[in-house]
Amino acid sequence: MAFVVVREGLFTVQCVLMVAKEKVSEQMVKFANALSRESIVDVAGIVSVPGEAMKGTSQQVEIQVRKIYCINRAVPILPISIEDAARSEKEIEKAEKIFRSFLRSEGFRGIHTPKLMGGTSEGGAAVFRLDYKGQPACLAQSPQLHKQISINGDFRRVYEVGPVFRAEDSFTHRHLCEFTGLDAEMEIKEHYSEVMDIIDRLFVTIFDHLNENCKGELEAVSRQYEFEPLKYLRKTLQLTFPEGVQMLKEAGIEVDPYGDLNTDIERKLGKLVRDKYDTEFYILHRYPSAIRPFYTMPCYDDPLYSNSFDVFIRGEEIISGAQRIHEPEFLTKRAEACGIDVKTIATYLDSFKFGAWPHGGFGVGLERVVMLFCNLTNIRKTSLFPRDPQRLAP
Amino acid sequence: MAFVVVREGLFTVQCVLMVAKEKVSEQMVKFANALSRESIVDVAGIVSVPGEAMKGTSQQVEIQVRKIYCINRAVPILPISIEDAARSEKEIEKAEKIFRSFLRSEGFRGIHTPKLMGGTSEGGAAVFRLDYKGQPACLAQSPQLHKQISINGDFRRVYEVGPVFRAEDSFTHRHLCEFTGLDAEMEIKEHYSEVMDIIDRLFVTIFDHLNENCKGELEAVSRQYEFEPLKYLRKTLQLTFPEGVQMLKEAGIEVDPYGDLNTDIERKLGKLVRDKYDTEFYILHRYPSAIRPFYTMPCYDDPLYSNSFDVFIRGEEIISGAQRIHEPEFLTKRAEACGIDVKTIATYLDSFKFGAWPHGGFGVGLERVVMLFCNLTNIRKTSLFPRDPQRLAP
Repeated sequence: MAFVVVREGLFTVQCVLMVAKEKVSEQMVKFANALSRESIVDVAGIVSVPGEAMKGTSQQVEIQVRKIYCINRAVPILPISIEDAARSEKEIEKAEKIFRSFLRSEGFRGIHTPKLMGGTSEGGAAVFRLDYKGQPACLAQSPQLHKQISINGDFRRVYEVGPVFRAEDSFTHRHLCEFTGLDAEMEIKEHYSEVMDIIDRLFVTIFDHLNENCKGELEAVSRQYEFEPLKYLRKTLQLTFPEGVQMLKEAGIEVDPYGDLNTDIERKLGKLVRDKYDTEFYILHRYPSAIRPFYTMPCYDDPLYSNSFDVFIRGEEIISGAQRIHEPEFLTKRAEACGIDVKTIATYLDSFKFGAWPHGGFGVGLERVVMLFCNLTNIRKTSLFPRDPQRLAP
Repeated sequence: MAFVVVREGLFTVQCVLMVAKEKVSEQMVKFANALSRESIVDVAGIVSVPGEAMKGTSQQVEIQVRKIYCINRAVPILPISIEDAARSEKEIEKAEKIFRSFLRSEGFRGIHTPKLMGGTSEGGAAVFRLDYKGQPACLAQSPQLHKQISINGDFRRVYEVGPVFRAEDSFTHRHLCEFTGLDAEMEIKEHYSEVMDIIDRLFVTIFDHLNENCKGELEAVSRQYEFEPLKYLRKTLQLTFPEGVQMLKEAGIEVDPYGDLNTDIERKLGKLVRDKYDTEFYILHRYPSAIRPFYTMPCYDDPLYSNSFDVFIRGEEIISGAQRIHEPEFLTKRAEACGIDVKTIATYLDSFKFGAWPHGGFGVGLERVVMLFCNLTNIRKTSLFPRDPQRLAP
């Protein structure tokens, strides 16, 4: 006699082989007992409902096997057990799907921008360089420039889901050298809060959807890596940077009001916000101009601050965004002031001369959202094939 | 008096400014007349219905302007007129959307595979090489290996939409160095025709959707580049490679029954098929084994042929696909026979040892589909920011 548990995705069912004349041979039972785990099999048999409840399988039936074929045999010792393998990839897809469908319902159009760029990338950050048929090229570290050029054209609202490349030597729990970027850019009618409002509704929609429709997957993750559900408000909290600085000050933490917050301080502010407002998802806006890219629009009432924002989950940054400068002369002036050789970004600057809307946008790292939503300790757990400074395979 | 035509996307409306005491100043009329085309403006005024039909605008109303602001001024001479700019990007997005929604409804899961690969790519074709933190790396020329590894895992049906990189020196009307790939891979239950059936229903759905829901955009394309609607059948024609060879032979064209068809011959066969079957979309399957990649499954009844196929629109290839070999020993043997150093593909070969389903799949170039659907003469017309051997900007 042999018992074989057959699995298809999350579902398992018990198969029984009992030696019986003209039905199941002794050889067949031996064959079934010798099958290695994860081998691919075809089974034919009679489904029956056993007298007692089945404990080891998801399905409450049993199959009396008449035929069993091995389609492809797995090696006897597997490199990892199924139970050890997390399933967060499913949340990745769900989160991405809602990102797309929400933005589409708001009039955003999906675009594909090139990943191969001439010269070096805009930000001066570490990029992967390569030779493109004799021309110097690099891999896009964001679709920033092309999103903006699209807005300057006839596209009023655009989004992209695609790979983003960062050559930084960041051996942290939250950096990858290649990740899936969710990017959006939109015309601004009156105020940069229009962009933050899209983020507010977009992420509340994504979180709601994950909680309502991915219960099974979230439970599977939680069984392996226990986590508390994310606390978020129906209307996302928006704090200004100076308000954040003030909260830190009241908690005894002094920071430069015109400087950046480091990861540690961001996490501390996240705790203060959670304690005061009962949310682990919030937007911090009106960042100091000095620490944002040259194309960020300064605040009209105080150019030391800018129409920009970061968004946080559990105290860690997931989004950077801002209103961008849309006037070509001012943009050129700002680039020069930041020490950028304007010749190298001539195509970009030119695109603002042919009718450029006031606009803003944001970028999100999908893996980081999933990591923080599930409170996982390492971003590698959210990627099918992670790429870090040392890992390039499979 | 001034007449200003204001445009938003495909819609245009005429604005009238007439000098009137306390309402419209002479200066304001001068200002409006001096506005350059494509400048971004805000207009406030009273909407009226004119006595005669409006000929130059899409909207049959007029705006009596009271206020007009210039938000961002465009340069007086634009590099290209709006009328000259094609709008095929819209079809790109529609086609992609239907690709996703159809496959999702068929149980396919969206994945993101890395574009940075260790070593050199699988096909031996021209790849972009780069230095990855001291390791040799290249840009993925297809998601082939990772799609298959995903299938070998717990994902039964997967698809991906993402960038594909080809470093080939192809200065043709139909090659790009970076394009948007639509890829799918699926478990095969019994026969590779299951994959062809998915392609059949997928593309009929896409074509139907474009014809039914993108009439305005297709008309706009056709006004610039006149084309006949694509001829396709409700059930896609499937011909074997030997049948195709036979049709060519009957038309006086001799080809090697175990060799490849060149572009010219493919186009001729396309014409023969159109004349005989009244379709410009068809599948040619059972290709000679010698001209397909090492991982292609040979036909069980004749290993000189393989369980593979190409798909054609208007005589040009848009898809390559096949059943893949799922047995690790046979796969290794085939790689060795094709002169591949199996050490370099060890991770890939290993993934077949841990429970590998019989499976197959295909890859499509989205820009090429749009080009051929609209019978455009050049693939660059279908890409927002095309990349060819010489073009790397913007």
